[in-house]
Amino acid sequence: MSPVKILILGGDGYLGWPTAMHFSSLGHHVVVADNFLRRGIAIELGAGSLTPIRSLQERIGAWHDVSDREIRAHIGDLTDPGFVDHIVAETSPDAIVHYGEQPSAPYSMIDRKHAIQTQRNNVEGTLNVMFAMRDLAPEAHLVKLGTMGEYGTPNIDIEEGFIEIDHNGRTDTLPFPKLPGSMYHLSKVHDSHNIHFGCRIWGLRATDLNQGVVYGIRTPETDLDERLCTRFDYDEVLGTALNRFCVQAVVGYPLTVYGKGGQTRGFLNIIDTIQCVRLAVENPPDRGEYRVFNQFTEQWSVRDLAERVQRVGADMGINVAVEKVADPRIEAEEHYYNAAHTKLLELGLRPHLLTDDIVAHLIETIQRYKDRILLAPIAPKTRWDPR
Amino acid sequence: MSPVKILILGGDGYLGWPTAMHFSSLGHHVVVADNFLRRGIAIELGAGSLTPIRSLQERIGAWHDVSDREIRAHIGDLTDPGFVDHIVAETSPDAIVHYGEQPSAPYSMIDRKHAIQTQRNNVEGTLNVMFAMRDLAPEAHLVKLGTMGEYGTPNIDIEEGFIEIDHNGRTDTLPFPKLPGSMYHLSKVHDSHNIHFGCRIWGLRATDLNQGVVYGIRTPETDLDERLCTRFDYDEVLGTALNRFCVQAVVGYPLTVYGKGGQTRGFLNIIDTIQCVRLAVENPPDRGEYRVFNQFTEQWSVRDLAERVQRVGADMGINVAVEKVADPRIEAEEHYYNAAHTKLLELGLRPHLLTDDIVAHLIETIQRYKDRILLAPIAPKTRWDPR
Repeated sequence: MSPVKILILGGDGYLGWPTAMHFSSLGHHVVVADNFLRRGIAIELGAGSLTPIRSLQERIGAWHDVSDREIRAHIGDLTDPGFVDHIVAETSPDAIVHYGEQPSAPYSMIDRKHAIQTQRNNVEGTLNVMFAMRDLAPEAHLVKLGTMGEYGTPNIDIEEGFIEIDHNGRTDTLPFPKLPGSMYHLSKVHDSHNIHFGCRIWGLRATDLNQGVVYGIRTPETDLDERLCTRFDYDEVLGTALNRFCVQAVVGYPLTVYGKGGQTRGFLNIIDTIQCVRLAVENPPDRGEYRVFNQFTEQWSVRDLAERVQRVGADMGINVAVEKVADPRIEAEEHYYNAAHTKLLELGLRPHLLTDDIVAHLIETIQRYKDRILLAPIAPKTRWDPR
Repeated sequence: MSPVKILILGGDGYLGWPTAMHFSSLGHHVVVADNFLRRGIAIELGAGSLTPIRSLQERIGAWHDVSDREIRAHIGDLTDPGFVDHIVAETSPDAIVHYGEQPSAPYSMIDRKHAIQTQRNNVEGTLNVMFAMRDLAPEAHLVKLGTMGEYGTPNIDIEEGFIEIDHNGRTDTLPFPKLPGSMYHLSKVHDSHNIHFGCRIWGLRATDLNQGVVYGIRTPETDLDERLCTRFDYDEVLGTALNRFCVQAVVGYPLTVYGKGGQTRGFLNIIDTIQCVRLAVENPPDRGEYRVFNQFTEQWSVRDLAERVQRVGADMGINVAVEKVADPRIEAEEHYYNAAHTKLLELGLRPHLLTDDIVAHLIETIQRYKDRILLAPIAPKTRWDPR
C-alpha cells in the first residue's frame, strides 16, 4: 500500500502506541492525538503500568532514533470540538484510527460520576470526530475500536454487526441486537448507532472493529528498544483477563476467576490487533458504508484460561493457585457463546493463537518487570451493584 | 387505583403539563420538575406556542383554583445529579413519568452543538434518574417516553421492543434492532439501552413508551380554564406533522409534504398519550423488568394526512393547498411499515382515532388563536445534511 496519512486517536495507549509505530514502520505518515486519560486513570487508581513506559514525547524521540521516522503528536481532548477540527484539518487524514476512549468496564461502574464521564467522553468524542469528518475530511475512513461486549451473550450465534431476520414472511438485514454489560460497553453501543447514522446520512465510511479481549505485551516495534514498550495494566480495573492472570502467576497471587468462570469471550494477541487494524485501513469500505468486523481469533472461557496459565506455570516451575472469587460483575457465568469472525480472515488475517509458548513467553516478559508489580490494585473491588 | 406519588419530569411541556393535571384530577400526589428547556428553544428559534401558555407557577395556581388540588414544582436540570437526587428523595415516588428530554429531531440536526447538546441532555438526564432510583427509590416505576422513531423503517414488522429470532437452529428473544433517523432519535435509542441495563443489573422496573406522533391540543383538564392550556408548536422544528398541517391550513400556507410523502408513522391523539401513561402507571412491571409498549393508535402516511386535512378544510370552506417540498431530512420516502401496538390495548386503551370530526375540531381550536400564528418559523429549513 502506498503511503497514506493516518491519524491515530488515543495514540499513547496500550494499543494506540504500538499501532502508531507499526504504521510508521510501513512508511505511512502518522499523527497521534491523546489526552493521557489512561495515564490519569492509573494515577487515580493508584495502579500503574507493569512496563516502564516513557512519556509520549520520549517515545516519539526514541522511535525517531531507532527508525529515522517521524510521528507527530497533538495533545488534547476529543470532547473539545475545536481540537478535533484542528487535528483533522491539519492532518487531512486518509484514515482515522480511533482508540481514544475510556476503555474500562469496571472503571465505568465505580459510581455515577464515572459512568456519566465514560459515556460523555466516549460518545461526545466520537460525535466530534464524525462532524469533523463530515465537514473537513469526507473521504476519510474511520476505523473505530468497538468491543465484542456490545453483543453480550445471546443464546444465538453472534454475527458480524448485522443479522438477516425472517419475520412474518418478510426479510431484512438489520443491526445485530445489543446486550452490553456495563456503562462502558453501553458507550460503545451508542457509538455504533451514532456512526452507523453518520454513514447512512452523511456518507461517511467506517469500520467498527468489535474487538475481543487483547493480551500480550510485545510487538516487533516495541522489541526494538525498551523505551518503545507499551503500557501493560494488570489491576482489576484496567487489566484484561489473561494479562492479569499471568501477572498474578508471577507474584504468587491466586488467579482471580470470577464466579463459575464459564464466562466465554473472544481473545486475540496484541500483534493481531495491529494486524487487523492494518487490514481495515488497507481495505477501506465505500462511501456511506458502515462495516462491522468481529476482531478476535479464538474463544476462551475464563476458567479454561486460568487452567492454561496454571499448567504452563507448572511447566515453568511456578506453583499457580486458582481461586474462584464472588463475581463482582452481574453477568451470566455459564452461557452459550459462538461468534462469527470470518471477515478479517477473508482480508488476510493470520492469527497468532494462544499456544503454551505464547503464555510462557508472556510470563517470562512479566518476570523481567516483577519488581514493579503492585499487589494492592489486583483484588476485585468494583462491583456492578454496590448496594 | 388508590392515590400514589408521581414525579413528572418535563411537567411543563406539551404532554407533561396535561399529564400532571390528569393524575392530579384522579387524586394522585403529583410533583413536576422542569428546566424550561422547551420554552427556551422556542425563544432561540423565534417561534412560539400557538396557545397563550402561562408560566408554570400560574398554571399551578390556576389548577388549584379550578380543582382545589395541589401540584408541587421543582425547577432544575436533570443533568444536575444533585437536583435529581433531591427531587427523588423528597418525593419518594411510586412512579416517575419521564418526559424531560429535548424532544425535536430537527433541533438535534441543526449543527454539531445542537446534536451533542441533545444527546448529552437526554442521555445524562436519564442516567441521573436511573442512579437516583437505584439509590433512593428502588421500588419506583420509571415510565419513560421513547419514540417509535427508534425503530426507523425496517422491511419487517416492528414488534414491541423485543423480537424472537431463530438463527442457525437456536432461538432467543432480543431487543428489536434500531435504525434511528436523527441525533434526537439516537438519544432515545441510547436511553433504551441504558434503561434496559439498569433493569437487568440493578433490578429497576421500567416501561419504555415508544410513542408515535402526537396531535391535538385539548384534554378534559385543559378545557376547564384557558389558563390551563398546553403549549402547541407548529414550527418546522418543534411542531409535529398533523399539528403543523392544521395550522398551515388555517393561515392559508400550503401543507408542506416532504418529498414523496410516503413516510408512514404511528399517530395518536394527545388524549390517548395521557391514557397510555396512566395505564402504564396503573400496571407496573415487576422489579428487574424492562417493558416496551409501542404507543400509537393508527398508522398514517404524511401524504394521506395532508389529503385528509385538505378534504376536511374543503368541507369547512377553507381552500387548502398541498405542496411537495424537497425533503430536508434523509429518510425513505416510500417504505414498508407495519408496527405492532397491542400491549396498551390489552391493558385497556380505548383509542380516539383521527376522524374528520377530530380534524375539524382541531382546525376550529386553531382558528381561535389565528392572530397568534407566526409565519416565519413554518418553512422547513433544518436539513439533515447541510452541505
